[in-house]
Amino acid sequence: MANSKYEYVKSFEQPDVLLPNTWIVVRIDGRGFHKLSDRYGFVKPNDRRALDLMNAAAVEVMKELPDLCLAYGVSDEYSFAFHPSCQLFERRSAKLVTTIVSTFTAYYIYLWGTYFPDTPLQPAALPSFDGRAVMYPSSRILRDYMSWRQVDCHINNLYNTTFWTMVLQGGMSNTDAEQELKGTVSSDKNEILFKRFGINYNNEEEIYKKGSVIYRQYQLEDAQPKSGTSNAEEEEDIPSAPASRSQQDKIRKLRRKAQVVVDHVDIIKDEFWQRRPWILSGRPGKLPTEAQ
Amino acid sequence: MANSKYEYVKSFEQPDVLLPNTWIVVRIDGRGFHKLSDRYGFVKPNDRRALDLMNAAAVEVMKELPDLCLAYGVSDEYSFAFHPSCQLFERRSAKLVTTIVSTFTAYYIYLWGTYFPDTPLQPAALPSFDGRAVMYPSSRILRDYMSWRQVDCHINNLYNTTFWTMVLQGGMSNTDAEQELKGTVSSDKNEILFKRFGINYNNEEEIYKKGSVIYRQYQLEDAQPKSGTSNAEEEEDIPSAPASRSQQDKIRKLRRKAQVVVDHVDIIKDEFWQRRPWILSGRPGKLPTEAQ
Amino acid sequence: MANSKYEYVKSFEQPDVLLPNTWIVVRIDGRGFHKLSDRYGFVKPNDRRALDLMNAAAVEVMKELPDLCLAYGVSDEYSFAFHPSCQLFERRSAKLVTTIVSTFTAYYIYLWGTYFPDTPLQPAALPSFDGRAVMYPSSRILRDYMSWRQVDCHINNLYNTTFWTMVLQGGMSNTDAEQELKGTVSSDKNEILFKRFGINYNNEEEIYKKGSVIYRQYQLEDAQPKSGTSNAEEEEDIPSAPASRSQQDKIRKLRRKAQVVVDHVDIIKDEFWQRRPWILSGRPGKLPTEAQ
Amino acid sequence: MANSKYEYVKSFEQPDVLLPNTWIVVRIDGRGFHKLSDRYGFVKPNDRRALDLMNAAAVEVMKELPDLCLAYGVSDEYSFAFHPSCQLFERRSAKLVTTIVSTFTAYYIYLWGTYFPDTPLQPAALPSFDGRAVMYPSSRILRDYMSWRQVDCHINNLYNTTFWTMVLQGGMSNTDAEQELKGTVSSDKNEILFKRFGINYNNEEEIYKKGSVIYRQYQLEDAQPKSGTSNAEEEEDIPSAPASRSQQDKIRKLRRKAQVVVDHVDIIKDEFWQRRPWILSGRPGKLPTEAQ
Repeated sequence: MANSKYEYVKSFEQPDVLLPNTWIVVRIDGRGFHKLSDRYGFVKPNDRRALDLMNAAAVEVMKELPDLCLAYGVSDEYSFAFHPSCQLFERRSAKLVTTIVSTFTAYYIYLWGTYFPDTPLQPAALPSFDGRAVMYPSSRILRDYMSWRQVDCHINNLYNTTFWTMVLQGGMSNTDAEQELKGTVSSDKNEILFKRFGINYNNEEEIYKKGSVIYRQYQLEDAQPKSGTSNAEEEEDIPSAPASRSQQDKIRKLRRKAQVVVDHVDIIKDEFWQRRPWILSGRPGKLPTEAQ
Repeated sequence: MANSKYEYVKSFEQPDVLLPNTWIVVRIDGRGFHKLSDRYGFVKPNDRRALDLMNAAAVEVMKELPDLCLAYGVSDEYSFAFHPSCQLFERRSAKLVTTIVSTFTAYYIYLWGTYFPDTPLQPAALPSFDGRAVMYPSSRILRDYMSWRQVDCHINNLYNTTFWTMVLQGGMSNTDAEQELKGTVSSDKNEILFKRFGINYNNEEEIYKKGSVIYRQYQLEDAQPKSGTSNAEEEEDIPSAPASRSQQDKIRKLRRKAQVVVDHVDIIKDEFWQRRPWILSGRPGKLPTEAQ
Repeated sequence: MANSKYEYVKSFEQPDVLLPNTWIVVRIDGRGFHKLSDRYGFVKPNDRRALDLMNAAAVEVMKELPDLCLAYGVSDEYSFAFHPSCQLFERRSAKLVTTIVSTFTAYYIYLWGTYFPDTPLQPAALPSFDGRAVMYPSSRILRDYMSWRQVDCHINNLYNTTFWTMVLQGGMSNTDAEQELKGTVSSDKNEILFKRFGINYNNEEEIYKKGSVIYRQYQLEDAQPKSGTSNAEEEEDIPSAPASRSQQDKIRKLRRKAQVVVDHVDIIKDEFWQRRPWILSGRPGKLPTEAQ
Repeated sequence: MANSKYEYVKSFEQPDVLLPNTWIVVRIDGRGFHKLSDRYGFVKPNDRRALDLMNAAAVEVMKELPDLCLAYGVSDEYSFAFHPSCQLFERRSAKLVTTIVSTFTAYYIYLWGTYFPDTPLQPAALPSFDGRAVMYPSSRILRDYMSWRQVDCHINNLYNTTFWTMVLQGGMSNTDAEQELKGTVSSDKNEILFKRFGINYNNEEEIYKKGSVIYRQYQLEDAQPKSGTSNAEEEEDIPSAPASRSQQDKIRKLRRKAQVVVDHVDIIKDEFWQRRPWILSGRPGKLPTEAQ
């Protein structure tokens, strides 16, 4: 029995291949996590268990997809970056995005009990995530994207830390705290924390202040002296013509061998990138002789 | 602290709004389910637990998204249809697709233990799904899409039923069974089943032969006498101009009240659609006075 | 000498195929025609020569592209409609749009001297046009699009006729006329024209009031009694599956035989479409036995 | 009279903004120029009048659109390059492409009589062009695109020169010449030209061998010593964040002051780009003190 009579409907599928030689960032966001964090009693301003669960799920995504170079997470969002040379799924947008969203969700649900042993999931309120893919045409812009997310992390965390300290330790109402913080700048918030509560914001945990960056670990290189051409040289490293399938497979294998690590460091300055040139170049580095 | 220096990266996000007044079908597929079904010992040719789990997850998706009119599932795939009048997420493709994929995945993982009580999930092999959205510009073509999937279900199930009967009951090797079935038509396979194994394919379970269709239940209407204009009339019912936000909210509420049912029936012929006009019209019907 | 080293750049071309079974409207607009109409001394409020030139160029586009069903023009804009069954250039958007824009421009420049014998083109100010393609998923919406343009024509022409009569015959300054017309409705403008200048707007030329509609001429059919299902029936006529290449060629030949006519009639009401069912059906009618 | 009832049709227009910070190349091609070149008696293998007309039209396009950095033409095709920083028409693809196609067509038709004084245009066979836009994410790839076109020019011109010499001077039939050339490489064709006809291909006119490159003229810079980082440095020059509107206007004005020149030179090697750094940087150079 042939299916030809109805097969014409396949012609309605439209291609969604992303432009070659561009960075692809898939960002996922928790759906309705404001409400969800209340329901499951997330600690304010930061729930370490929830962040560790996000990171654990993201690590699994990185392991399953060796084409990923980098991931950066903060709060209920995570950004995953594919290198410009990536050919996975022929760079089809929906396929890349849904694979990441579904894999992340699967591990988030599966690992929930590990991080929230006393708070079982409720069938009427399962966590879920949406996502989208964005292209960035150069390493400079990819770095600016990552800087944007990390600056956002800092801004939000300083606000939330101050707000919740005023409420939880200072006994203020949410409205009063919100009102007082309106129009303040960073130094104002630092001062409130320090003068009223004896809290030095700089001593807060790095995971809260910097977010989490995930990458494959190779031998760190020396930080280069700062120079105007450093990024340009990284850029230069990206070949324009696509790699052969066997080259891709070889690179994937090398990547699978590397350890996937979670770090809480500055990714705005050059140093992070200079010491880990494999992230922007897409070429695996040397495996460390011992764990770092 | 302002984030303006890096915020220009937002301009790289490209819109992905789907054409108004078209049906949107989001189809999701299990990733690597061939291998996965071996690993978890799925029964051949059909594992009732696996299908029931797919259906349970799909029912939850239908409940969470009242904008969905219909879903059809077979094997490890499920198609979800949004009505042409749907305005959910401003019809953004990535948002619609990832919401469905993530919600489906969340329930699939969460409910796994209910359907596979003796087969725990393995952390290195979690099930996941990919998906994509396709637009269909008329109800006729939407129906042809659904017919395409149901014909595919029939073709595959007849093949698989025959193949696995030859292997499991007939003691043939996979290769020999495959070889013998090469080039056969439906009647050949029916004959093999009947003559060699005494199996009347018509008596197989409907869920295997027809797949699963999910929709909201209202009072069934009388089947109309077959007529050339019937589909056209349904088509006519779809207003061209978009509904107001309050109208949409009202319709959503009405839809939430309806029971979501799983059926295993023919969706190729007119009858299914004529008795359930609300599916193509997008207008909720009358709630049944008693459960059906 | 092979060109393979650089040929990878072809992979950057992205597909732009429009959704099957939708109406495609290519609308073109004069670039900077406000300034251009001053420079070439177009008569206000309507320059018959300029409109005739637009129509002449549009007729040539219709002749060159038999896949076009209909065109509608007003002022310096023209909309060309391809039938949902159209397969021209595999429905590639850029190809369809640029072919129409370039062909239209070529005839507009070439025929300029015929319509403006005393006003030669100036090399520093050649007329040109931009354009874009839009999809409409049903005949009802295609008709609403055409109605939108014709209502716009009416609104603008009534305004312009009143404004320029106040200025040219009434001796008012542009600013005073603009000021007085601010906030007026149609009946106000009709009254100004009639009471002050003895002009009955209804007696203005149809080309100014209705714009220009271009189509292929076949034997007119009787207008059907108004009925709720009329459009639906037209809709029903559009086959969902694509026609074969030989069927398409045959239809193209039949279309080439028909005379392309320019009309200035109402295209909002049903009558125009009922008497010319071939426009929405895409199926050529009977050739008239004598010119109409 | 309001137009609101039909205005919903505007919602069907879909955005087509091209990715920021990428090169945009609009390539246009003559439609059916094989047939057209016969009809108008173009000289084989190259018609100087036809090429000069192409170049004249392209120069006018460059003058009208100061956002263009470069154009390259060969035969009946022309490629126009917008810089990554270009914001013209908000980078809407259809607007950019149709503006170029229409402007080019207008000048081509208008100037025809200047280049073909004895061959009037025929109304049934007006020349026209189609076009499309492609994005290239780096200067390296933009250069590879241009190299691709110039290598193509060389390959085709060597073939055509040999073929037409064999036919026109050697008295061979088209078929015989085609047959003999099948499978030959460059050196074979050079030898046929030299040994049989005493033609040294190197002495052919540059416009035929190299095609035509159009750009704005500033003071040439010294060619840099060849170095691996040269392109990277050019790349580095492109700012990631968009320029303000006033900056853009200022740059446009500076560009309008520069002379637009037509050249027939190698654009594959580095020298062309190193001596004219303004092309890739997008920053106007110094105006020459005297014509070069």
